[in-house]
Amino acid sequence: MVKVGVVLCGCGRFDGSEVHESVLTLLHLARGGAEWVGLAPDTAQWAVCEHFGGEVQAGEDRNQLQEAARIARGEVAPLAQVSAADLDALILPGGSGAARNLCDFAERGGDGAVLPELATLLRSLHAARKPIGAICIAPAILALALGPHRPRLTLGPSSSGPALEAARTGAEMVDCPVDGVVVDEAQRLVSTPAYLRGPGIAEVDAGIGKLVAQVLAWCRR
Amino acid sequence: MVKVGVVLCGCGRFDGSEVHESVLTLLHLARGGAEWVGLAPDTAQWAVCEHFGGEVQAGEDRNQLQEAARIARGEVAPLAQVSAADLDALILPGGSGAARNLCDFAERGGDGAVLPELATLLRSLHAARKPIGAICIAPAILALALGPHRPRLTLGPSSSGPALEAARTGAEMVDCPVDGVVVDEAQRLVSTPAYLRGPGIAEVDAGIGKLVAQVLAWCRR
Repeated sequence: MVKVGVVLCGCGRFDGSEVHESVLTLLHLARGGAEWVGLAPDTAQWAVCEHFGGEVQAGEDRNQLQEAARIARGEVAPLAQVSAADLDALILPGGSGAARNLCDFAERGGDGAVLPELATLLRSLHAARKPIGAICIAPAILALALGPHRPRLTLGPSSSGPALEAARTGAEMVDCPVDGVVVDEAQRLVSTPAYLRGPGIAEVDAGIGKLVAQVLAWCRR
Repeated sequence: MVKVGVVLCGCGRFDGSEVHESVLTLLHLARGGAEWVGLAPDTAQWAVCEHFGGEVQAGEDRNQLQEAARIARGEVAPLAQVSAADLDALILPGGSGAARNLCDFAERGGDGAVLPELATLLRSLHAARKPIGAICIAPAILALALGPHRPRLTLGPSSSGPALEAARTGAEMVDCPVDGVVVDEAQRLVSTPAYLRGPGIAEVDAGIGKLVAQVLAWCRR
């Protein structure tokens, strides 16, 4: 059975993983007959935010792995304990937490860096030609980790601030609708804008369904 | 457009709403062309649990409405502010948090009581013949609120402890597989066992899809 890691970083769009994108990824993997395992850093979130407007709650503290277990029903392992040999593919859901916990793209844009254990995992998977899918803002993580390889990715509108920042890494940023995917066939990378475009869960689900199908198709080729 | 309330009570199976069941409910409502609004008590959760084994974390405190906003992307209103006239239907996802935050079924079984504002809302909707759907352990809430009307419901295996407790209210508890629903046509109630049976998100999704379709069919009849 194909085994796919799903990188989580908390539970909630502002301080962790976007909940809908994460759950829909798990849904399509299960429907597609794949085994999934959640992976998350066993460290504190960048912040704790209330989830109406996203305001940071001073003095609060939550652990990414512990909160990710809410999404993954406990099926989540510390990211640092997993290597490319353990997985057939990797998918990264979005949420602005992903641009702050898993890298510092939200602060430093195209000059940012990826969490070292995730950067290592991504580069190892890429070198082994194992597929990687990235949703919403998470393609920015691929740009930061793999930019010199000129990956073909989307962050929704190609003229948006995040897309222009990601393009500074060397990545080719392509416009894409919410129900579509951008495929880098040569490098086995696939991305979809999800809630970067919205408007709702049904449209986001359509794009994520295509992304997961592409990842599984590569795994089985 | 049909407007359906979705009753949440936090974000996580042990201390709040089961995340998959909640998100899949929103997905099927959106796909079915309905408008949804999350509803949650603006009060503290019964506890905060870690989500590997469910152990209570002493000294921690989270608000049901604030945590539900993580699932609903901020589209959640205080339960006490909504009345039956505002909604065409109501759906209650599960999670053991639902049996502790929204009622005390987990502690008191068939002798339990439902949170007063939710009991009032359920009885008003029922009196107005507006459909109600309940997932996983949440049919126990309908049993406690509507037992004397002898509602036909499921909590998975009809000989399980929870089903036997729920039957003490007067409810008729019917066996049901994970991908099925139990329909009380006369009272416009529909239920599905979801993670009471498992095993995974794809099977749970099949039952929730049928539940939402039944609710929307009643709304449009």
